[in-house]
Amino acid sequence: MKTIEWDSLVLIMYKDMKYLKRINEGQSFHGKGGMLNYSDLIGKTYGIRFGQYEIFEPSLEDIVMYGLKRETQIVFPKDAAFICFKLGLKNGSKVVEIGTGSGVLTFLFSRLVGSTGKVVSFEKEERHFRNAKKNIKTFAEWDNIELYHDDTVDCKEDGFDAAFIDVREPWMHLEKAFNLLKESGLIGMIVPTANQVTDILKEVPGFFGDIEVLELLQRKYKTVAERVRPFDRMVAHTGYLIFGRKLRMDTT
Amino acid sequence: MKTIEWDSLVLIMYKDMKYLKRINEGQSFHGKGGMLNYSDLIGKTYGIRFGQYEIFEPSLEDIVMYGLKRETQIVFPKDAAFICFKLGLKNGSKVVEIGTGSGVLTFLFSRLVGSTGKVVSFEKEERHFRNAKKNIKTFAEWDNIELYHDDTVDCKEDGFDAAFIDVREPWMHLEKAFNLLKESGLIGMIVPTANQVTDILKEVPGFFGDIEVLELLQRKYKTVAERVRPFDRMVAHTGYLIFGRKLRMDTT
Amino acid sequence: MKTIEWDSLVLIMYKDMKYLKRINEGQSFHGKGGMLNYSDLIGKTYGIRFGQYEIFEPSLEDIVMYGLKRETQIVFPKDAAFICFKLGLKNGSKVVEIGTGSGVLTFLFSRLVGSTGKVVSFEKEERHFRNAKKNIKTFAEWDNIELYHDDTVDCKEDGFDAAFIDVREPWMHLEKAFNLLKESGLIGMIVPTANQVTDILKEVPGFFGDIEVLELLQRKYKTVAERVRPFDRMVAHTGYLIFGRKLRMDTT
Amino acid sequence: MKTIEWDSLVLIMYKDMKYLKRINEGQSFHGKGGMLNYSDLIGKTYGIRFGQYEIFEPSLEDIVMYGLKRETQIVFPKDAAFICFKLGLKNGSKVVEIGTGSGVLTFLFSRLVGSTGKVVSFEKEERHFRNAKKNIKTFAEWDNIELYHDDTVDCKEDGFDAAFIDVREPWMHLEKAFNLLKESGLIGMIVPTANQVTDILKEVPGFFGDIEVLELLQRKYKTVAERVRPFDRMVAHTGYLIFGRKLRMDTT
Repeated sequence: MKTIEWDSLVLIMYKDMKYLKRINEGQSFHGKGGMLNYSDLIGKTYGIRFGQYEIFEPSLEDIVMYGLKRETQIVFPKDAAFICFKLGLKNGSKVVEIGTGSGVLTFLFSRLVGSTGKVVSFEKEERHFRNAKKNIKTFAEWDNIELYHDDTVDCKEDGFDAAFIDVREPWMHLEKAFNLLKESGLIGMIVPTANQVTDILKEVPGFFGDIEVLELLQRKYKTVAERVRPFDRMVAHTGYLIFGRKLRMDTT
Repeated sequence: MKTIEWDSLVLIMYKDMKYLKRINEGQSFHGKGGMLNYSDLIGKTYGIRFGQYEIFEPSLEDIVMYGLKRETQIVFPKDAAFICFKLGLKNGSKVVEIGTGSGVLTFLFSRLVGSTGKVVSFEKEERHFRNAKKNIKTFAEWDNIELYHDDTVDCKEDGFDAAFIDVREPWMHLEKAFNLLKESGLIGMIVPTANQVTDILKEVPGFFGDIEVLELLQRKYKTVAERVRPFDRMVAHTGYLIFGRKLRMDTT
Repeated sequence: MKTIEWDSLVLIMYKDMKYLKRINEGQSFHGKGGMLNYSDLIGKTYGIRFGQYEIFEPSLEDIVMYGLKRETQIVFPKDAAFICFKLGLKNGSKVVEIGTGSGVLTFLFSRLVGSTGKVVSFEKEERHFRNAKKNIKTFAEWDNIELYHDDTVDCKEDGFDAAFIDVREPWMHLEKAFNLLKESGLIGMIVPTANQVTDILKEVPGFFGDIEVLELLQRKYKTVAERVRPFDRMVAHTGYLIFGRKLRMDTT
Repeated sequence: MKTIEWDSLVLIMYKDMKYLKRINEGQSFHGKGGMLNYSDLIGKTYGIRFGQYEIFEPSLEDIVMYGLKRETQIVFPKDAAFICFKLGLKNGSKVVEIGTGSGVLTFLFSRLVGSTGKVVSFEKEERHFRNAKKNIKTFAEWDNIELYHDDTVDCKEDGFDAAFIDVREPWMHLEKAFNLLKESGLIGMIVPTANQVTDILKEVPGFFGDIEVLELLQRKYKTVAERVRPFDRMVAHTGYLIFGRKLRMDTT
């Protein structure tokens, strides 16, 4: 049975508030539920109430939402999970990412493709590149990521199973992605505006087939049994997702 | 470069219609785009136009949507992908499923936890059990699934990382799931009605913390660059998703 | 107490199906609930069960949905009701409509502005013009509508309280609408695509202030007490609504 | 041409902020766009820019959103407009309201039914009753409202065209509403929780037919032509709307 040790990551909850913390020696947590001496947690199991707090083992979502430092527009779990599914990633997959951003997808891709897979990711902005590198170093579980502060021009590999583009002008990178992908390889993109969707749709038919454009909306509900109802407010928009498959256009 | 061979699975597209087919010798495909002799595809790469058809390598989504035979209410990709994310499944995870249904999640769980993981799944209805078994046999990539036509009473293992419940009365199985899970283990459920959400919320606080109730809506868009707009109709409801974490209630 | 007479309009329901019918002498209704002799209804009140049918007095919604003949993309009640609200129509209002279409909004505007108000509506397509004219003649309750098969060029009136544009290129009519409106007058538009929203937003700031763009989604629920849940499918998109107010741009 | 006078109501906009103000002599408006002397507006038309502000004639929505004082959960315009449509209100309609609340619907009903119509509204809570009375006195345009701080027990009238219930337990008032309505009369209700929908659906079939349960979602978009996209956040839930029609249950 796994217990909390020095240097463990823990999720501390007080009511609806969540804090992802590392149990550093000699430190404590000060929140609305009072002070919490980390030394008191040592040797305890996860999944307990401690004073006014609840102490959990961090989940994947906790790492993504509270662990990774974000310097860019975030890719929400609802979108990230669906992207991973659509790209069909699994043990051993090779995936290329254009636009590392904060590295959320890089981290998830790495987790899914495992020790036998590979994630190659490119980021133009130095600031984002540095931040993503730190995030990867802290949280990635596999040594399967190649992070480049660079364009994709010099990528010597090809035959990727899947590609994802998260930059301002994805249509500028469609040909590159096409060339990096294996035949029938899968591509995904995310953009915030309908204008960008238009620009992508103008360019995409030359390279990819089975184009899909969609958005996912997540609606959360209050958890009182006698008063089941959605929360008053919700995230209304994160991005339009575009998917396709590499398609040789010359009809046989 | 992977090419189409006898016995390959291929995705055949004609306009918006998709067909997942096995390339059986001596057979052909008859659709709105005309006849397609399978023998003409042998040795070709995926990702090509052939006559009026487009031929792709089947994606994970194709397998889930067109491969697995469904005898029960389906778990849609948008929900399935999010469930896998919330349960934090990865190589080596152990997950228990109460209500195999058609085996869609069983198949996805198996794919994610890989050769070192384990999926134990229970199904009461014999008809569903048989169907799921066939689905698993046909499509599962790992030999890591234990399928039981049974209740969970006899499950001798415990310490599961995650549990998922997809039955009519999930609240009847919360205690079992609690016992099967490791400390701080993750649980998920899906139900179609708000009344079931109420019934779950009444029982859940005795076993699980960090309860979340939510639904995901997927809105697809037409893919004409000059006329970006959602489709006229959409799937309005698949299910309410409920998530939580095993929590020992005695405050330390 | 109002009773059904010859020539009355009635709504006949069988399960979820609705039929708006005129009680013509010597006729009968043949549906899945069996034959219904109209003569048997004469003298009865509305709001009754008759055999397997339910007989109601037609509501406003029934007239809009089942009475008016539609030759164009329909304006749904959810949108129509909100448009009327945003335009602030009331007894005595003067409203101009560019694009009569099937006359749904024309009919609703007429109903709201009453005997002391006025609705001036323009339709370019002769076929739509004729259809709308017939709809108005059959259903309008007030003689307050001027229907023109024409552009708005020759409209000699001005000082309208509100304007509504429902044509393919609303941005071509913004200046006209500006000139037809009184100072601070209200304008509304509806378009199906995001591209049209872009085109409108490019032109609108020269004429109107307090611009709003929005869409309304209607989600229906099943009506079984023990199984409260949305219907499986819904209308995902009717149109983007754009609203504004006439604004003199020269700062005082 | 209508101009601003002393005692006029005006809408003052600064960027996205709106203020409904009465132009009281000797007063001024102090906002983020600087000071605005009301005396400088006298004699001006509405629909102008004045310094950094935009000055509009208040619309119906402005009155509802910024004029009426709210002491209760608000009925949003999207819902209010649809309710008025579904109840089919027009000049001369008689409508009864159980639960005046802040009087938003009372005010809208009054506006629609005009001088020849009638609105009878009941409110149990004295505080709400007083607030609604003040709202009505300030904003109602017709002397057609009867406001009672009372239950509906003593309502001596009947034959109402439509009824609306906005209280915590609408199912307690269905029989009353049935008796107050004319044959085939229309009823509407609004409740925040799915549990209340269940309770209503249990009771409603004894009194009303053609039951509908639905919710409306309003999604607003940013108004930058080059970046058409929904706002990041939206109101996720206001209430479930329930509609029906009085139905005599005895089959003829």
